[in-house]
Amino acid sequence: MSAGENPVVLGTGLTKIGRRWEDSLSDLFAEAARQAVEEAGINPQALFLGNMSAGVLDSQEHLALSVEDGASVFPLVPAFKVESACSSGGSALVAGYMAVKSGVYDAVLVAGVEKLSEEPSDAVTSALAMAADSDFEAYYGASFTSLNALLMRSYMRDYDVPRSWLSEIAVLMHKNALDNPYAQLRKAITVEDVENSRLIADPIRLLDCAPTGDGAAALLLAKPELAKGVDPLVELSGVGVGVDTIAVNGRSSLSDVPATARAAKAAFSAAGVDPKDLDVLEVHDAFTIMAALAVEDIGVVPKGQGAKFFHEGSAERDGDLAVNPEGGLKARGHPVGATGVYGAVEVVRQLQGKSGKMQVPNAEVGAFHNLGGSGSHAVVGVFKRRK
Amino acid sequence: MSAGENPVVLGTGLTKIGRRWEDSLSDLFAEAARQAVEEAGINPQALFLGNMSAGVLDSQEHLALSVEDGASVFPLVPAFKVESACSSGGSALVAGYMAVKSGVYDAVLVAGVEKLSEEPSDAVTSALAMAADSDFEAYYGASFTSLNALLMRSYMRDYDVPRSWLSEIAVLMHKNALDNPYAQLRKAITVEDVENSRLIADPIRLLDCAPTGDGAAALLLAKPELAKGVDPLVELSGVGVGVDTIAVNGRSSLSDVPATARAAKAAFSAAGVDPKDLDVLEVHDAFTIMAALAVEDIGVVPKGQGAKFFHEGSAERDGDLAVNPEGGLKARGHPVGATGVYGAVEVVRQLQGKSGKMQVPNAEVGAFHNLGGSGSHAVVGVFKRRK
Repeated sequence: MSAGENPVVLGTGLTKIGRRWEDSLSDLFAEAARQAVEEAGINPQALFLGNMSAGVLDSQEHLALSVEDGASVFPLVPAFKVESACSSGGSALVAGYMAVKSGVYDAVLVAGVEKLSEEPSDAVTSALAMAADSDFEAYYGASFTSLNALLMRSYMRDYDVPRSWLSEIAVLMHKNALDNPYAQLRKAITVEDVENSRLIADPIRLLDCAPTGDGAAALLLAKPELAKGVDPLVELSGVGVGVDTIAVNGRSSLSDVPATARAAKAAFSAAGVDPKDLDVLEVHDAFTIMAALAVEDIGVVPKGQGAKFFHEGSAERDGDLAVNPEGGLKARGHPVGATGVYGAVEVVRQLQGKSGKMQVPNAEVGAFHNLGGSGSHAVVGVFKRRK
Repeated sequence: MSAGENPVVLGTGLTKIGRRWEDSLSDLFAEAARQAVEEAGINPQALFLGNMSAGVLDSQEHLALSVEDGASVFPLVPAFKVESACSSGGSALVAGYMAVKSGVYDAVLVAGVEKLSEEPSDAVTSALAMAADSDFEAYYGASFTSLNALLMRSYMRDYDVPRSWLSEIAVLMHKNALDNPYAQLRKAITVEDVENSRLIADPIRLLDCAPTGDGAAALLLAKPELAKGVDPLVELSGVGVGVDTIAVNGRSSLSDVPATARAAKAAFSAAGVDPKDLDVLEVHDAFTIMAALAVEDIGVVPKGQGAKFFHEGSAERDGDLAVNPEGGLKARGHPVGATGVYGAVEVVRQLQGKSGKMQVPNAEVGAFHNLGGSGSHAVVGVFKRRK
């Protein structure tokens, strides 16, 4: 089978993440979509939208067409909501990639939107628990934080990792977010702040966790023929999805995320890139432990060396490989179904040299990583600057 | 851009639709998926699942991976839930088509599943109203039945259509479903039964409406090289999606569904087929009025002639064009997110000559139609028997 060429990125858009009580889902979508469409100078032929909780929290299904209709940024087009819990944004990007590569559509908008802050936090916790196994995990009270606490405890024990190394990941993310106008938490913190913050599910403390917030991100993908004079031109060179059991108790190890490794292998293979070629990497650090695991499972460092990689400064913007130079989920924020698209947009802007104070020097190859559930569904996408 | 070949169908599966209280979403999915995968003789590399209401009614998001994990029919693969209200199944099929045609996956399972009967009917009505505009329609009490009643009244007035012609559509669907082992309502009815049934939203009566029920459908799509000795071999020759405003009050006419016309045009163009070439057609008759409108908007008959087409017997199995020979949503049943996949499977089995007593003679070209919202999102897919 001969498939089409890799799609290129013609426009991107982001909203500031936070408590956006005055804005509807359509308003948030409109803000990000307008930037992407105006930059591209063309309208999309279809929309692929990542979202997890609008049915439960906002009483709105049929969400993709609904936000498009409410936003009126471009004429109505076929609209697909794609859902895979916190990796919904990444999954929407995979669907958009296939839509262009198959030749079915010449230009599509990939977006993600989520609105979490309007509801009481117990409603949000319940809604997010629907990403876990409803009958066998959520029913017994296993929240996402407690499931991630199991992973953090197991990892620290298996690889003899000091707690402070994980705290340092939070410190770096907050430092990076100081330069990010879209970030939810723009406030420097110290290791002591992390370790004195409220205990949520031992050993996870409040400052190990990404905040919940509202936001939207968008990216216009098109076939290369539509890129007239765009320079630098960034292409989506490969995507990969990896999976594992929904319930954490079904896995043989609690100190790695095999779904990430599977997704990375597929994406790097499709893109013809090796993890060592990366100049910038956006990982899904919903909890500090997830950042340490991600750089290992993606293949940047060997098993057990992830936290050390951060500890040694290798993940800083001028380090061996810049990881989350915009602050990651931890400080930039985690508007669930939009998070994967944020990561993708951040990589693209780095490769375009548009990241301002957050810019990683000479970034030509980058990847984003997006997780759904407690490591059950992972998406990796590799972008390259075209020569 | 050169795109890949059209995917072919290697296996199909259906469950009986009804009150399946003893079966979980995973159980229903497993029943349909097992048939499709066993018939195909190969495992899928990804799952595209249509579903609308599992978050709201079953407290389970991350649904695609969840049902796959619970069902254990094949090794875990990347899993995408695709949602566009009642057209979620059709949208999942479009995504599966792009997945194979893009070359990203060689074989995918497209499925739909919905479980509606376990909750009280007011919870189900509220959940389904989330396909309408939550802020501007549902808020004011406009249910799907009342919105469709507007269309039925407008159509009867604009084209001077007798009520009995619409009642006859229900009668034909119930007659067809008598032969369908998967149908929810296997009971012959008369025009008098329809017109004496309970008034729901004038002029719609109970027997104008499709029932709500639980069910699942599945179809394995693959690149043609994987079809070893399959005869007859059916391909998915083209898909199309058309859209319109979410809110019915945003439209210029209440007597047609332009989204259907747009979807049909795109699908027939991609497939290189004309509506007059069709041997069998499955339309989305959630209400009798929708069947009349569908045959017009798809281009089988001119505007205003749809109800007459049924009245004259042209839609019967041995008529000019068999429409819903398995009973349609009206009598086969309407498990929302699975409905589009039921229609697709029914077309495929007709083209394979496997429809038993429901068989349409010499069926070589067929199409299915799937609607989301009150005519706001339409999917059409065209299948052909390969020579």
